[in-house]
Amino acid sequence: MKNKWLYQPCSALNETARNAALARQGQLTKPPGALGKLETLAVQLAAMQGAEKPQVERVQISIFAADHGIAAEGVSAFPQAVTGEMVKNFARGGAAICVLAQQLQAKLEVVNLGTVNDPGEWPNVRREIIAPATANFAVAPAMTESQLRLALQTGADSVLRAKQDAVQLFIGGEMGIANTTSASTIACALLQHTPELLAGPGTGLDGAGVAHKIEVIGRALALHGLSGDPPLEVLRCLGGFEIAALVGAYLAAAQTGIPVLVDGFISSVAALLAVRLNPGARAWLLFAHTSAEPGHQRVLAALDAQPLLQLGLRLGEGSGAAVAVSLLRLACALHNGMATFAEAAVSEKIQTDANPSSLVVL
Amino acid sequence: MKNKWLYQPCSALNETARNAALARQGQLTKPPGALGKLETLAVQLAAMQGAEKPQVERVQISIFAADHGIAAEGVSAFPQAVTGEMVKNFARGGAAICVLAQQLQAKLEVVNLGTVNDPGEWPNVRREIIAPATANFAVAPAMTESQLRLALQTGADSVLRAKQDAVQLFIGGEMGIANTTSASTIACALLQHTPELLAGPGTGLDGAGVAHKIEVIGRALALHGLSGDPPLEVLRCLGGFEIAALVGAYLAAAQTGIPVLVDGFISSVAALLAVRLNPGARAWLLFAHTSAEPGHQRVLAALDAQPLLQLGLRLGEGSGAAVAVSLLRLACALHNGMATFAEAAVSEKIQTDANPSSLVVL
Repeated sequence: MKNKWLYQPCSALNETARNAALARQGQLTKPPGALGKLETLAVQLAAMQGAEKPQVERVQISIFAADHGIAAEGVSAFPQAVTGEMVKNFARGGAAICVLAQQLQAKLEVVNLGTVNDPGEWPNVRREIIAPATANFAVAPAMTESQLRLALQTGADSVLRAKQDAVQLFIGGEMGIANTTSASTIACALLQHTPELLAGPGTGLDGAGVAHKIEVIGRALALHGLSGDPPLEVLRCLGGFEIAALVGAYLAAAQTGIPVLVDGFISSVAALLAVRLNPGARAWLLFAHTSAEPGHQRVLAALDAQPLLQLGLRLGEGSGAAVAVSLLRLACALHNGMATFAEAAVSEKIQTDANPSSLVVL
Repeated sequence: MKNKWLYQPCSALNETARNAALARQGQLTKPPGALGKLETLAVQLAAMQGAEKPQVERVQISIFAADHGIAAEGVSAFPQAVTGEMVKNFARGGAAICVLAQQLQAKLEVVNLGTVNDPGEWPNVRREIIAPATANFAVAPAMTESQLRLALQTGADSVLRAKQDAVQLFIGGEMGIANTTSASTIACALLQHTPELLAGPGTGLDGAGVAHKIEVIGRALALHGLSGDPPLEVLRCLGGFEIAALVGAYLAAAQTGIPVLVDGFISSVAALLAVRLNPGARAWLLFAHTSAEPGHQRVLAALDAQPLLQLGLRLGEGSGAAVAVSLLRLACALHNGMATFAEAAVSEKIQTDANPSSLVVL
């Protein structure tokens, strides 16, 4: 089997830690369930980290940048040169994800897998160049088998660095002009949906631009005829180097036991590929936000994912996941720092029945 | 006119700062609108603070605690002693809002307006005792006119302290067993809705408990016959000291020009009262989250409010607003810290038309 490592078992969650965290939640000085999703999050992180009191202080954000041959079809509102320009912007600290990483004191690494407009050497950018761009998948498979293998491994390598740093949460980001077209086409192939259901404005196409994008996606799907093909072949024919890197990163994180916070539309398509390749990965994925990109909701539904935030974000770069880190940290702080009813000598809930005059203190 | 200060004009927003912030958003290295609500937030804060680059570093959280006579009707899942016990828990730092305030490095003040179970003196709790509790509004008006005046002024005084500290954001929190019943009844009177539409489980009533709460609210509404009465009389007859304090605080904040982040159901009912009393207050209110309490959505709709978070929170104490502070801070950091297209030499959006082969770089 090719790329055999992808199918290795994922780590098991720690049910003892989950139960200890659940029990702790029931003892904190608040009505049961009153902290909503923040309670669920703390318990999930406890099970992932194998600790009754989880922490999300050490965070790694890896941004994977790459260009897409499909950009030649005129499917993006921005010129292809922007991918390389944004790598420089990442390197100089001017992009949204840089500002967020600094605010969160997260480790930020930028991985250049190949851009047509080459940003050159930067001290804080890893050059893992596979090719200047994928092939235009409206006329040929996007990647060769060896390109796919390299891209998957590059993503996994980022997670191995995270593991060495004992990172408590991994975020993957992406940058690549035309990559919503790649992600939408992959989602069409995996979910057997029509392009109309999954194509959206991306960075800002108007109605005519979206109509053209739908036509290009339909043409590519007809060319490759991927119905029922294995997910790895879908990824090779339609993907980008950065999307493959995200898939490799998510699987490596699940195998080595690092919780993942998934960003928006493109990251979620990579998550869907990862889960189709190795279903055990699903347990290691938390979902940060619902993107303004309309196809995201269908991809999230296929993953049975209920993201934390709905802020109309549609930037990529891992930015929505970075914003959600603040919620994970507050969830952990509340879980770990609140007093219990016993510590605070606060009365617990009273049992009500149909007759409220017979209240009994538990 | 009684309580004349309530009707004094609110501060005007700064339209020059708003326009400067809007222009800045259009120049940052991202597709226009790609940061969704985080962009809107930064622009709103700029207009409130009169600064192109707003900041939310200095935050004051004032928690108002008080008991409700209506608790005698058996409308809460917790015994009335919990209000005073929770004041002690606030004082000792064990409650959710204490953990959040510490994480955010926000100033936290606790104001005790009167609890049946008196927590006594604590170094970090202000004693502004009006009475051990309001009267049971199922049988009599909740407050006298002088009690109402005192409670409103106590809230305003918290904001005057915030103003002295040059606070950039004010959050009001509340604690008071049975105060969802008070808030639901006020909302019924203001919105002319039936109790069935606005009463919910509060801290955790079961179906029978909610049915009983609906009956109590219906009885109180029939007793007071408040249809068409001024909002201040609705507040006096049905409110709590802590709800009146929130109303006073919100109005003082709007008058002195401090942005307010409104918490959940009870705080939103106080916000609705404030806006009904003085419509100019609305422009100073940001809404943090949609509570799990079902009536919250109707109150938010009446305020034309779209909160930032939907996390199923239903704790009060200002906790949901405190969680949302992290989003406001990240919105400001992005707005203030990202590079512009010119600074980063990144190409801007290309204009698309119906023919994607004629792309023009702007």
